[in-house]
Amino acid sequence: MQFYFDFISPFGYFAALRVGELASKHGRDCEWHAMLLGVSVLKVMGLKPLVETPLKGPYLTHDAARYARRRRLVLKRALHGPQINPVPAARAFHWLKCHHADRYRGIAVDMLDAYWREARNLEDPAEIALIAERRGVDGETLRTAIESDEARQLLRTAVDASLKLGVFGSPFFIVDGEPFWGVDKIEQIDEWLTLGGW
Amino acid sequence: MQFYFDFISPFGYFAALRVGELASKHGRDCEWHAMLLGVSVLKVMGLKPLVETPLKGPYLTHDAARYARRRRLVLKRALHGPQINPVPAARAFHWLKCHHADRYRGIAVDMLDAYWREARNLEDPAEIALIAERRGVDGETLRTAIESDEARQLLRTAVDASLKLGVFGSPFFIVDGEPFWGVDKIEQIDEWLTLGGW
Repeated sequence: MQFYFDFISPFGYFAALRVGELASKHGRDCEWHAMLLGVSVLKVMGLKPLVETPLKGPYLTHDAARYARRRRLVLKRALHGPQINPVPAARAFHWLKCHHADRYRGIAVDMLDAYWREARNLEDPAEIALIAERRGVDGETLRTAIESDEARQLLRTAVDASLKLGVFGSPFFIVDGEPFWGVDKIEQIDEWLTLGGW
Repeated sequence: MQFYFDFISPFGYFAALRVGELASKHGRDCEWHAMLLGVSVLKVMGLKPLVETPLKGPYLTHDAARYARRRRLVLKRALHGPQINPVPAARAFHWLKCHHADRYRGIAVDMLDAYWREARNLEDPAEIALIAERRGVDGETLRTAIESDEARQLLRTAVDASLKLGVFGSPFFIVDGEPFWGVDKIEQIDEWLTLGGW
């Protein structure tokens, strides 16, 4: 199965904390994809940022806080915008996925935790490098990689591919070719995998 | 608890088929509210119709068909637009709620079934009257009522009230003052009612 998320989407974070367990429960591999919801997808859709949308913006902030409370997550990061620019984190993600495939998901969770729980500045390549170093990645190499043409190209290719597949939200899942949007779909995906589809 | 839906929203229909059981399971009363998603709410939000939104439109059609399949619903009505003008049905709903409070929910389900399962023309007051007659409402009175100032005013008041409460989607639920958006929230509402909130 495929899992898409934006580092600055709280619902993407909530899904990242659950998708590993979901996949392993059903004996599935899960490939992760960092995407750019605000920077890229909403523009294609002709929509403004979600938190700026009347009615829906306040609701989503309330819903995210309620979801966090249910899961006993204490977040230092404010749920209502503005968030950081997610591009450095997304570039780091795709470079790590390419060069450290055995640990890119673990580092992504660490980055998400650092951002949401500890309110650390995930826009700063030095912060990202510190996080990755704890999992044995050379920090200086990663800092340089974030600014590299290679990382830029990897991210651009990934974002284009996700748009072509119709990914328009965070989180987003593709399971057996079926698209599922939103953290509220986790229960339905679980049911889908249990029943073998319907 | 409060339940909001638009007659021409398939997800509102799916929720209408389940909300009665959900409420009675937890010993709750459930008040129903017909609202106007496309005609009114999306304009306030500055959004175009959902099915015309790139990426999200095709997804929602696919998701609705998948949801219907899971629930063994066979729908003659096409899920991708254009749908009818829901105003006559919504006016009938609010007039019935005011004058036949003991059966307005049952008639609403019949109207939704007629529209989605049988692809009947719910824009036509004569069709609406036929449906309500089966539950003992005088058809001629209802047909006249749909065009009355009273029904117009009842609908306008209800739509304004729902907007003030932040209702922006179909289905939408308010439980213990908590807003829940989307048919995918039914499981979470069930959990909320079981735990007494969190």
